[in-house]
Amino acid sequence: MITLGIDLGGTAIKGGLLSSDGRILARASLPTPPEGGAAVIEQIGRLADELSARARPRRLGIGVPGPIAPGGQRVMEVPNIPGMTGCPVVRLVGRRTGLPVTLENDANCAGVGEFHSGAGRGSRTMILFTLGTGIGGAVIIDGKLWGAGELGHLPVVAGGRRCGCGVAGCLEAYGSALALGKATGRPPRAKEIFDAARRGDRRAARAVEEACAMLGAAVAGLVHTLQPDVFVLSGGMAAAGSSLLRRVRDHARARVFSQFRPGIRVVKGTLGSDAGWIGAAVLARRS
Amino acid sequence: MITLGIDLGGTAIKGGLLSSDGRILARASLPTPPEGGAAVIEQIGRLADELSARARPRRLGIGVPGPIAPGGQRVMEVPNIPGMTGCPVVRLVGRRTGLPVTLENDANCAGVGEFHSGAGRGSRTMILFTLGTGIGGAVIIDGKLWGAGELGHLPVVAGGRRCGCGVAGCLEAYGSALALGKATGRPPRAKEIFDAARRGDRRAARAVEEACAMLGAAVAGLVHTLQPDVFVLSGGMAAAGSSLLRRVRDHARARVFSQFRPGIRVVKGTLGSDAGWIGAAVLARRS
Repeated sequence: MITLGIDLGGTAIKGGLLSSDGRILARASLPTPPEGGAAVIEQIGRLADELSARARPRRLGIGVPGPIAPGGQRVMEVPNIPGMTGCPVVRLVGRRTGLPVTLENDANCAGVGEFHSGAGRGSRTMILFTLGTGIGGAVIIDGKLWGAGELGHLPVVAGGRRCGCGVAGCLEAYGSALALGKATGRPPRAKEIFDAARRGDRRAARAVEEACAMLGAAVAGLVHTLQPDVFVLSGGMAAAGSSLLRRVRDHARARVFSQFRPGIRVVKGTLGSDAGWIGAAVLARRS
Repeated sequence: MITLGIDLGGTAIKGGLLSSDGRILARASLPTPPEGGAAVIEQIGRLADELSARARPRRLGIGVPGPIAPGGQRVMEVPNIPGMTGCPVVRLVGRRTGLPVTLENDANCAGVGEFHSGAGRGSRTMILFTLGTGIGGAVIIDGKLWGAGELGHLPVVAGGRRCGCGVAGCLEAYGSALALGKATGRPPRAKEIFDAARRGDRRAARAVEEACAMLGAAVAGLVHTLQPDVFVLSGGMAAAGSSLLRRVRDHARARVFSQFRPGIRVVKGTLGSDAGWIGAAVLARRS
């Protein structure tokens, strides 16, 4: 069965067609209308039209940058796109396209994409971190997406630095591009801050080291909880620093019991910005 | 099928017989021989003989206070009982009793016991904390025991207080009876320290409050990772403070996204010191 996957982002809507055996049959992208709301639904419809002209999908999956309401029909809120809070995406896109629609959080979609076709292929249990302005995540256990995947809000320093969510000491308050920006007084662009650290800027180096230590602590906690086969880092920060992987893994190893050390695998996502729509297409097929 | 469960502890070996429908058919206990090693195996054999005289078990499960080596045949180490490091428990107890033997960590056994017959009954996903001198745990996902359950070593204050395992900032360094003892200059007995806190001892009250806050942080992290149906607290500390449950839950609620708050259930284990052998007997049946 051919399925259509859509990844709704703050600046672009990406999509593509996936065959049952996981081949990419087509790919396309359109800008996200800044006015949001109904214009976004219409733009998703146009992208679906464009892709459906190349091969006929039977189902459509959408990943959105925000939590999904219980029942899977609506988004609870989409902080980066106006007019989407409470939007009944499944019904509206279903009416526009005539296809059965499934809805999932974008980080969860990226996790399913990497698990199915990317860095997590062949594993049973995988944890993905999306390292961008904020931190998202996906938890896949025995091949199934589990829980909320809100890994940016793992407590790493109870009573520590305040996070954007209002709580003190979340991972996101230390390990995100936003946190790196705040700690260095620079714009929250991971690549620039990683480059500055490499050039010997001590403030940048300290912030990067702290981010890696906190990501390593989070990985260690998840090893002690679940012993996943592999951790996949994706998003802008993972792309920025190839040294990131090694440092996160080393910090994690230093924090776990010796018997767990050899089993810790931390790798970079291999699908880049295709992970989200591929995962959405996989989830649409399974629903 | 009747199965025999054994819970090997530092001072006593407890055991019992479980019917296929989960009824307790018999229960018995013998002291743990302080010389350890072969004497422990023989004492397990005697307890099995005594129980087998009442009804004939087909399999035997053992819970031990230490990590199990990969393959499930040996214990890696048992800090509280001499002469057990690397002991091939499955082979030795199998030879002594003539029964097929399965081996599991004692906290994992307690988790399976509470899930099957106690506070977690009817749930799909349950997390158990054993709050004693140290902190252990068990993670049950979709009815299956997962991972290592080393929840005492979740990082709650990266860079914080040093834990017995050598790492800084583990939950056990804040939330265990040993941590309460260190923080108050008292013997590590949770009940006495809880009582002192209730009587208005400020040092004890502060330590108890910190323990609850850190347990709450750990619960919050697990909610953001897995959204379990229920958290079960067991062990001496859970028995000591009935207020513990409410405070751990309140701290956890204060740290999670609002949509997760109503779903957080924190309850006390209902099987007491029977949880371990019941879980071992359940695991023996499934193997």
